[in-house]
Amino acid sequence: MNEDPTLALARQILAAQPFSGVVGAQVEAFGDGRAVLRLPIEDRHRQQYGLVHGGVYAYLADNALTFAAGSALGPSVLTSGFAITYVRGARDGVLLARARVVHHDARHAVCAVEIHVADDLGAERLCCVAQGTVLATAGKAAP
Amino acid sequence: MNEDPTLALARQILAAQPFSGVVGAQVEAFGDGRAVLRLPIEDRHRQQYGLVHGGVYAYLADNALTFAAGSALGPSVLTSGFAITYVRGARDGVLLARARVVHHDARHAVCAVEIHVADDLGAERLCCVAQGTVLATAGKAAP
Amino acid sequence: MNEDPTLALARQILAAQPFSGVVGAQVEAFGDGRAVLRLPIEDRHRQQYGLVHGGVYAYLADNALTFAAGSALGPSVLTSGFAITYVRGARDGVLLARARVVHHDARHAVCAVEIHVADDLGAERLCCVAQGTVLATAGKAAP
Amino acid sequence: MNEDPTLALARQILAAQPFSGVVGAQVEAFGDGRAVLRLPIEDRHRQQYGLVHGGVYAYLADNALTFAAGSALGPSVLTSGFAITYVRGARDGVLLARARVVHHDARHAVCAVEIHVADDLGAERLCCVAQGTVLATAGKAAP
Repeated sequence: MNEDPTLALARQILAAQPFSGVVGAQVEAFGDGRAVLRLPIEDRHRQQYGLVHGGVYAYLADNALTFAAGSALGPSVLTSGFAITYVRGARDGVLLARARVVHHDARHAVCAVEIHVADDLGAERLCCVAQGTVLATAGKAAP
Repeated sequence: MNEDPTLALARQILAAQPFSGVVGAQVEAFGDGRAVLRLPIEDRHRQQYGLVHGGVYAYLADNALTFAAGSALGPSVLTSGFAITYVRGARDGVLLARARVVHHDARHAVCAVEIHVADDLGAERLCCVAQGTVLATAGKAAP
Repeated sequence: MNEDPTLALARQILAAQPFSGVVGAQVEAFGDGRAVLRLPIEDRHRQQYGLVHGGVYAYLADNALTFAAGSALGPSVLTSGFAITYVRGARDGVLLARARVVHHDARHAVCAVEIHVADDLGAERLCCVAQGTVLATAGKAAP
Repeated sequence: MNEDPTLALARQILAAQPFSGVVGAQVEAFGDGRAVLRLPIEDRHRQQYGLVHGGVYAYLADNALTFAAGSALGPSVLTSGFAITYVRGARDGVLLARARVVHHDARHAVCAVEIHVADDLGAERLCCVAQGTVLATAGKAAP
């Protein structure tokens, strides 16, 4: 069984991010201006009330929109910022962060993200929405 | 040696957040509409280029502004959302996320955050800015 | 010819906003968690390069998301804030700001907005995206 | 009496924006990464409850941060987007939108804005805060 090479590359990049390893996110889909990250909720993702920590959603939003932008702009990108709005908390299940490029040109991409939580039966509820901007860095790795 | 009881409470809340344990953040200061989180950069905080992952800044921004708001609104709060703008990357040193309430009434607080990286000599550089809104939940722990 | 009473009410509210009269926006559709504002571009909407001023998009985003939220929460609402990302400029044509509620409960609504420009043939191009939060004020008109 | 030439240039640019003429804003200060816009509240700036329309604050935030960025990056700039959080409404007085560059390099500037309302005696109250990003366009007027 062969994996799609584009998806395999995205998984390789995620695997090269130590912080993504700490969080435990996986790339579920990647390509054509879209990216989906998947995170099965475990205790380490929670805050003091047993809900998923806001920082986990924020990490997923940041990373999903950066991957979606990278699928359109190429691998050398730099996320400029994003806005996230929390909608509902989640305790259990699997988080799915779906990002898509709503517009891009050679220099930058604007992305929208929705994060849902899926239960055992696959029923989904919206947890938060985000939008952000990613710049193409033309081979420059970082500022 | 006695610790300030307000700061001790804030540290207890952070210690009760499994995700904050995973990241390794500490409460440096807390009270009067302000909160400072501190995070010595380690390899687990980095992305594929060796820089601190955007999700780490986003976690710090989310948590610092929630703590700052909690110092004004009380412990039952719910972060509504925030916007973060990345300014410069960081590889090494200590991250300091300083949040302050710019306005609050009984129902909500608006907070601003700046995250700097400090080197061994204490020299600081701005890494990102954020602003967000936190709602008082009047004893309700979560949505 | 009878107008839909819900749409008529929304138009009445817009007509009661002096600033909306100054800008010249119209309510094109309203109801079920959605609102569409329409603005034929005129010279008064432009900045120094002949493009629509960013403030015009920001006004449309603010107002469209407030109307969309009002269709779900009732007329007593207070917009908490929003984030807008500009995508492409526009010189001529008709601006269409389409807002929808992505989530709401009794206390607040989270809305997304897209603003397109339509040319004479109806072809559309995306100009900007926004997302924001609106609070129900339970009969309280303002803070 | 001679006006500061930098301030005079900023006023000339604002005067070349038809939409700014419609709103009635003035440049109060400009230079060194800062800009202050001033707007005496009139009936045309209000919404249906007699308060200043959210779109007026959003216009001021957009324009003030673009001017502040322009004072650091030069006149060829393009605002990428911003986030605004409303704090308190205003009915009367003078709005003062103060923007400052919190960071800039050759390619872009990150700006923060606070909008206060001043009464007849000069007492001020915070109305909203915003932060945004502005790109240098190197002589390109628009996308």
